[in-house]
Amino acid sequence: MQTDTSTLSKETICSIAVGDFVQRVKDFHGATAPGVILGGYMVDLAYRHLPTGDILFDAISETRACLPDAIQLLTPCTIGNGWLKVLDLGRFALSLYDKSNGNGIRVFLDTAKLESFSEIKTWFFKLKPKQAQDLEVLLDEIHTARSQVCEVTSVKLKPEIFVTRRRGAFRICPICHESYPAAHGNSCRACSGETPYL
Amino acid sequence: MQTDTSTLSKETICSIAVGDFVQRVKDFHGATAPGVILGGYMVDLAYRHLPTGDILFDAISETRACLPDAIQLLTPCTIGNGWLKVLDLGRFALSLYDKSNGNGIRVFLDTAKLESFSEIKTWFFKLKPKQAQDLEVLLDEIHTARSQVCEVTSVKLKPEIFVTRRRGAFRICPICHESYPAAHGNSCRACSGETPYL
Repeated sequence: MQTDTSTLSKETICSIAVGDFVQRVKDFHGATAPGVILGGYMVDLAYRHLPTGDILFDAISETRACLPDAIQLLTPCTIGNGWLKVLDLGRFALSLYDKSNGNGIRVFLDTAKLESFSEIKTWFFKLKPKQAQDLEVLLDEIHTARSQVCEVTSVKLKPEIFVTRRRGAFRICPICHESYPAAHGNSCRACSGETPYL
Repeated sequence: MQTDTSTLSKETICSIAVGDFVQRVKDFHGATAPGVILGGYMVDLAYRHLPTGDILFDAISETRACLPDAIQLLTPCTIGNGWLKVLDLGRFALSLYDKSNGNGIRVFLDTAKLESFSEIKTWFFKLKPKQAQDLEVLLDEIHTARSQVCEVTSVKLKPEIFVTRRRGAFRICPICHESYPAAHGNSCRACSGETPYL
């Protein structure tokens, strides 16, 4: 079954036509990755549970895979502006939370709900090699399921996560002669052993 | 002095008119942050030093601030597709590297070169409170300086950085009942003490 984009476009994710969101995912992420599309429905669900009013919220992705891009495409939160944090917990879950008090909404993939969605289950648990799964059929099932495979809960963030620390003073590293946050110590972290380079 | 966008638009960053890049930064990052604009010129410089030909490259940002968004806007590398890694080294530097062998190009802000660019120096070292600095004058100086405040070097990435590890099997956490990478141990990292929630 081919994805019927004329139908998709009538539906919305965070007030964006689904077809337009799919195109944005393709442009930004490089492919219509199932995890980013499903992530879009998760962000949409979280948004609908946020308290109304003009709250400033930040975001957490509990995995490095796919979800951060759905968050960056659908919310004001990006890695570079610091409003999105990525934690490498390996759970397919995200939270949006009020940055003033840490009260938030968490959405996660509820694997118990995957029994009715065999394509999503097969993809998520890698029950078939990627080449053996039909991407179009999988995407159709994601667009049918929307957030039915997810669960939503209220959460309260730990203060060390939601309280913003201002960047302190910079100093010049005596080894590489580049600037780095003085709080990191007597030399920059790269010169203290964390360099990614040979 | 007002930024003359008619002049800016004739110049390019990674083949995109500078004016269009500035608009993309505003839309994605939420503001025309000096760090993302300067980051654009840094990505452009790195691109121009990459070997020609169809190489697949990944990216590293050595800081969480601003640079990741310049990379995500100008390259195929994003956080969610795994081609961009963000290291919290606190150095204003980025690398693009061949993902097959780890050979790459690193661009960093050379603070010795800031002596001729007082607005950039004042902003980078926070020599004035943010409110006391004129954003338009600073952005004009960044567009004048382009990558003149940067240095470029060849680098070789450590194998543990550039060799892609495939995600292994998933299992269900006995505590939260959510799925997580089996490689993380007997329970998921969140339930093992790394939860961001109260």
